[in-house]
Amino acid sequence: MTRKQLVEQIYSKGSYLCVGLDTDIEKIPECLRKEPDAVLQFNKAIIDATLDLCVSYKINTAFYEAMGSKGWETMEKTVAYIPDTHFRIADAKRGDIGNTSSQYAKAFLQEMPFDAVTIAPYMGADSVKPFLDFDGKWGIVLGLTSNQGAGDFELRRLEGDGSPLLYEEVLRKASQWGTTENLMFVVGATQPEQFERIREITPEHFYLVPGVGAQGGSLKDISKKAMIADCGILVNASRAIIYASENEDFAEEARVIAAQYQYEMLQYLLPRIGTIGKEPV
Amino acid sequence: MTRKQLVEQIYSKGSYLCVGLDTDIEKIPECLRKEPDAVLQFNKAIIDATLDLCVSYKINTAFYEAMGSKGWETMEKTVAYIPDTHFRIADAKRGDIGNTSSQYAKAFLQEMPFDAVTIAPYMGADSVKPFLDFDGKWGIVLGLTSNQGAGDFELRRLEGDGSPLLYEEVLRKASQWGTTENLMFVVGATQPEQFERIREITPEHFYLVPGVGAQGGSLKDISKKAMIADCGILVNASRAIIYASENEDFAEEARVIAAQYQYEMLQYLLPRIGTIGKEPV
Repeated sequence: MTRKQLVEQIYSKGSYLCVGLDTDIEKIPECLRKEPDAVLQFNKAIIDATLDLCVSYKINTAFYEAMGSKGWETMEKTVAYIPDTHFRIADAKRGDIGNTSSQYAKAFLQEMPFDAVTIAPYMGADSVKPFLDFDGKWGIVLGLTSNQGAGDFELRRLEGDGSPLLYEEVLRKASQWGTTENLMFVVGATQPEQFERIREITPEHFYLVPGVGAQGGSLKDISKKAMIADCGILVNASRAIIYASENEDFAEEARVIAAQYQYEMLQYLLPRIGTIGKEPV
Repeated sequence: MTRKQLVEQIYSKGSYLCVGLDTDIEKIPECLRKEPDAVLQFNKAIIDATLDLCVSYKINTAFYEAMGSKGWETMEKTVAYIPDTHFRIADAKRGDIGNTSSQYAKAFLQEMPFDAVTIAPYMGADSVKPFLDFDGKWGIVLGLTSNQGAGDFELRRLEGDGSPLLYEEVLRKASQWGTTENLMFVVGATQPEQFERIREITPEHFYLVPGVGAQGGSLKDISKKAMIADCGILVNASRAIIYASENEDFAEEARVIAAQYQYEMLQYLLPRIGTIGKEPV
């Protein structure tokens, strides 16, 4: 999916919501657990219930790997079920030496119809670049994450020109490895005080923003601080949506929560409608 | 596998060799490709041919994921085929927020019989700790990697006490999250000039050392600089061993190369035999 196509989806739906399918077999409703592939049935119901309210789905690979090769198959079937109108993210946080990263890129961007993969940047340029070689596909590099451990390394200050924080240096360097058409960054919603600085370094990039909902980040804060003319953010909510109810009405309740997010997002998007391609408001 | 058991294997075999099963379907001999699970047949032949010469196998998950759910199944069958006398490493470079890292740990250390998983440390403590919660299992945190991209962030200097390089700070911090009995570090063989400093920071930890062979690192250099009384290193070679021949004799030729490594390793181990538990020579 190109940036233009993604932005068209966002403005036509009034939503920059990404629904995170971190589906844990132990947390899905009792009524589904006897199904032959309960996780797939759960995912399909969530997708059906939220399709018109979101522009993206994010599959957290860990939850599928924990179920072994059958889980990987469930992931394959889930991503195949998502229509190509939606931006399909493999939240895999991969990254390795070049020839290995190429294999990861192949797994998600070629063998499966994902539009994007999240990437851990620790190993540098040759671990990131192989993900950026696919037309209409994206690499999403971890910038500043939403967890407490972000303080251990990401928020440490480096010596040298301007003494950047490590995550700032990751944004600066990685933005040279790709373009605003094939590279995004993960920026956690729990760090709104950093967003001004983040937009300074990467004024035109899209961000994937986790941490709203279960992790406590504010949709208003990050929308106010990070939105640009063509939106430039995808906000992910996982647990808050998919586990909205433990009962048979889980899909309806997921839709209720997704609709709340979409309604709030529409308010932030409205002043910008018609500004695409112009300066941010 | 406990440290004691691993060290017993090393000293009884005169080897600290880890054979890397980065098996690429496009690189295995023609004669095997028609088999129903060619990669598994290839791996079994390599394992049979090298079992007495090495103490560990490392499965590079990327190469299996690139084959989809069938590839994941091949990985499951491969690790199940490796006897539990050998230290089984999932070279997966995972790491995410706590609840997600727990799922990755479950995938490799509980659902599959791996003894260890490699971990990317960018996201900090809560992304690493869930891998350290399994008796007799290990997390192997990326310290200094063998690729060129290591210069982008790992070798950058941080402000603060002693101005450590980023990777030095990773070693220092992460070594507090686990013990020398459940935590190792990845340290690339292509950076021998860093080994003295690395041993200063983590004098007692085991290192997994990739980069010998195809990537150009010297076995002699790293053995001289990083070995401690109970050995303390596992040296990995992947492509140099498994692709020693493109023909039907691939397993015999893999054995020849593995035997060369083992013979050289024995020379470095000999002066230390009998010193286990005493000061390094």
